[in-house]
Amino acid sequence: MKTIVALSTPSGSGAIGIIRISGNDCLSIASIHFPKIKSWTPRKAILSKFYEKNGDILDEVLLVYFPGPNSYTGEDVIEISFHGSSYILQSALKELIQSGADIAKAGEFTQRAFLNSKLDLVQAEAVGDLIASESRSAHDLAMRQMKGSVSIRLQELRQQLIDFAALIELELDFVEEDVEFAQRSALYKLFRDLKTEIEKMLNTFTLGNAIKNGIPLILAGAPNAGKSTLLNRFLGEDRAIVTEVAGTTRDSIEEKFRLGDHLFRIVDTAGLRISKDEVERLGIERSWKLMSEGQIILFLIDPTCCSLEEAKILEEEIVDRSPNADILKILTKSDLWGDVDYLKHFPNTLHTGLNVDLKNIQTKLSSFIDDDQWNGSSDVLIANIRHAEALNSSLTSLKKAEDGLNNGVSGEFIAYELKDALYSLGSITGEVVADDLLSSVFGRFCIGK
Amino acid sequence: MKTIVALSTPSGSGAIGIIRISGNDCLSIASIHFPKIKSWTPRKAILSKFYEKNGDILDEVLLVYFPGPNSYTGEDVIEISFHGSSYILQSALKELIQSGADIAKAGEFTQRAFLNSKLDLVQAEAVGDLIASESRSAHDLAMRQMKGSVSIRLQELRQQLIDFAALIELELDFVEEDVEFAQRSALYKLFRDLKTEIEKMLNTFTLGNAIKNGIPLILAGAPNAGKSTLLNRFLGEDRAIVTEVAGTTRDSIEEKFRLGDHLFRIVDTAGLRISKDEVERLGIERSWKLMSEGQIILFLIDPTCCSLEEAKILEEEIVDRSPNADILKILTKSDLWGDVDYLKHFPNTLHTGLNVDLKNIQTKLSSFIDDDQWNGSSDVLIANIRHAEALNSSLTSLKKAEDGLNNGVSGEFIAYELKDALYSLGSITGEVVADDLLSSVFGRFCIGK
Repeated sequence: MKTIVALSTPSGSGAIGIIRISGNDCLSIASIHFPKIKSWTPRKAILSKFYEKNGDILDEVLLVYFPGPNSYTGEDVIEISFHGSSYILQSALKELIQSGADIAKAGEFTQRAFLNSKLDLVQAEAVGDLIASESRSAHDLAMRQMKGSVSIRLQELRQQLIDFAALIELELDFVEEDVEFAQRSALYKLFRDLKTEIEKMLNTFTLGNAIKNGIPLILAGAPNAGKSTLLNRFLGEDRAIVTEVAGTTRDSIEEKFRLGDHLFRIVDTAGLRISKDEVERLGIERSWKLMSEGQIILFLIDPTCCSLEEAKILEEEIVDRSPNADILKILTKSDLWGDVDYLKHFPNTLHTGLNVDLKNIQTKLSSFIDDDQWNGSSDVLIANIRHAEALNSSLTSLKKAEDGLNNGVSGEFIAYELKDALYSLGSITGEVVADDLLSSVFGRFCIGK
Repeated sequence: MKTIVALSTPSGSGAIGIIRISGNDCLSIASIHFPKIKSWTPRKAILSKFYEKNGDILDEVLLVYFPGPNSYTGEDVIEISFHGSSYILQSALKELIQSGADIAKAGEFTQRAFLNSKLDLVQAEAVGDLIASESRSAHDLAMRQMKGSVSIRLQELRQQLIDFAALIELELDFVEEDVEFAQRSALYKLFRDLKTEIEKMLNTFTLGNAIKNGIPLILAGAPNAGKSTLLNRFLGEDRAIVTEVAGTTRDSIEEKFRLGDHLFRIVDTAGLRISKDEVERLGIERSWKLMSEGQIILFLIDPTCCSLEEAKILEEEIVDRSPNADILKILTKSDLWGDVDYLKHFPNTLHTGLNVDLKNIQTKLSSFIDDDQWNGSSDVLIANIRHAEALNSSLTSLKKAEDGLNNGVSGEFIAYELKDALYSLGSITGEVVADDLLSSVFGRFCIGK
């Protein structure tokens, strides 16, 4: 495999910029540019001049040599700390490429770590998630994936399936003799258990995804109820255009903000009303759709122009469309209420206004997610759409196999479906790439048999 | 001095983000977050978990400990390579600050290196220049400054002044006896030499500044001559608005581009004509001013609507206003010339047009700066406005001292001016902060004497 090189720190000006080289030719390429280094002591920070091929000094740098396999990629790795000038970093990359290194593709260092069994696919993906994490809960989730809790659970599921497949296999070998090694009742139970397990994992995806990408928080309500104003206050900036005109917001606006340990994805939607304006009508349709996907809905009511009855009708419709969401009712524009105490008229509501602190709303929001599931006590959480899809497809295969069992189809058919299910599960951790267990189980199937 | 901490890589997402800690409490603060590290082997890359104070693991990191004084700052330094997540880096900074580190001010690590005599002020400033360098020549200039060639030259100048001051000093001690230890003719010569030297250094500032910030390249010519079009072609993007209407560009537009080893600062100016439009008139005034500061002027002529005579008149005015600039005459819009070969009619011109390669113009541009001075053979180059100002003020003091000598004023007066000149020179490298040589020379002057 070719030796690769890349800038490992963000681009832009900074005190330090790191270039990482990985591969068999690591030392020989580096030696061209560090002719003065006679002994490459492993893991020792060495101060040295980086020479260009023409003999000019490009920079004075610190470098560390990590001999494989005890490096990030499992190959020989050198990390060079340059002065963080884009000119220097570009020039150094150019020089190293001229000396024989290839520019690394996105993720290629981690890919090599995977190929060298330093981590599995779930852990490799978690490295990316860790780097992208924007909140404590997303960070904790990625750390957990890196530790391998999902991988271990998947391993257990696969082992059960493999054991099961082995029994079916035996039957196939003795097919002429019509023996049943795999007790059908036990098999049914195993299917049910596996399905339940996988479904349970799949159910964590909504949560895992919300932790990773932000908990969806939908602003809903009649036009001019104050949704965009509240969005801007949450973000601390004038993100959405706010006017007196009802129906100002048409396209939904989505932004992220952090509250405590959690990242929220707040969505401002078009106000809900019957509209003849085509653009607004499309916006309202979209509002309903967004609400059905929301984890939490902030239902805003301007009590100065919306009666309790009207609010109730709208609330019923919201509950109807998004039965699983937490709904928080908020009375808006309290500075315009005058002497009327609308909070008394509208039960179970919070309120907001131009000079009203958001604290009450934030506390209530936090309380919605203040249980263990959001804070990472659950060890196995699916947060990656690729994993969810693979789980789904293994579930489909398992169901087909179960149906086949019910309908008394041949062991070959069931074995095929099991192979698919195993493949899907194994693709999550990347095991199927290297796993010779699979071939030992299925390798004796002839083609077409 | 308090222990400081800062992010040393650019902010943004990347594979790696480095946090640097420097100061006496470096180890004790780090030990709070790396409780598992029992032995801090100097300069050894250690893989360890970073613990938050509450016991949670924030990240698994690589860190290197550089005990003072053999570190960048001269103090104990630890560099920690985190996963490049902004959440992780922010959290780590917060943790380290809670454990007793102060967030570093801009440049504070380098400032400490200066205070610990790891480098002088010129070299410290060169570190900043190196990081900001955008071209090979700017990079080479900063590297030279870091090596200390300017510092050494300044040291020599100061030594001459100090020797001279010592002689004046002697005279002051024996003032009653009316002796002249400092031979007046030798002193005159010394003054002249010093002045010439400093003026020579000052003259390199235009060059040094152009290398650092880009060589000023002014686009000049009548309105609608094709200046903005050429600017856009140099930049490879539609930076300036181009229309058929003469006088489209009013505000000057300035952009940088790199050609070979050099950085150019290209300036598009308002077309030169008598205009009644107030905005355009102000723009034209500015054009002339910019031209007077230009290193190279690209004088654009649209030969289809500008006669040779008109062009000559304009050229004379340009030469008159910017006598030191290189002027490159370019005929534009060659695709509209039809059968006329305008290149024959206008001597010594290049040409450009919609589909004409810029190569000829670029080659010519490069030839203007293709001599040794631009390529760093000159060892002493002033590129920093602070240095230029200090040199200027030492020159002023020297001139005053020389005038004083001519007018036979007292030695005290001359000594005062010399003190100022020495101070200005010393402030460049930062020597006056620590230099007790100064106090040994001037310490015996009483206040008010």
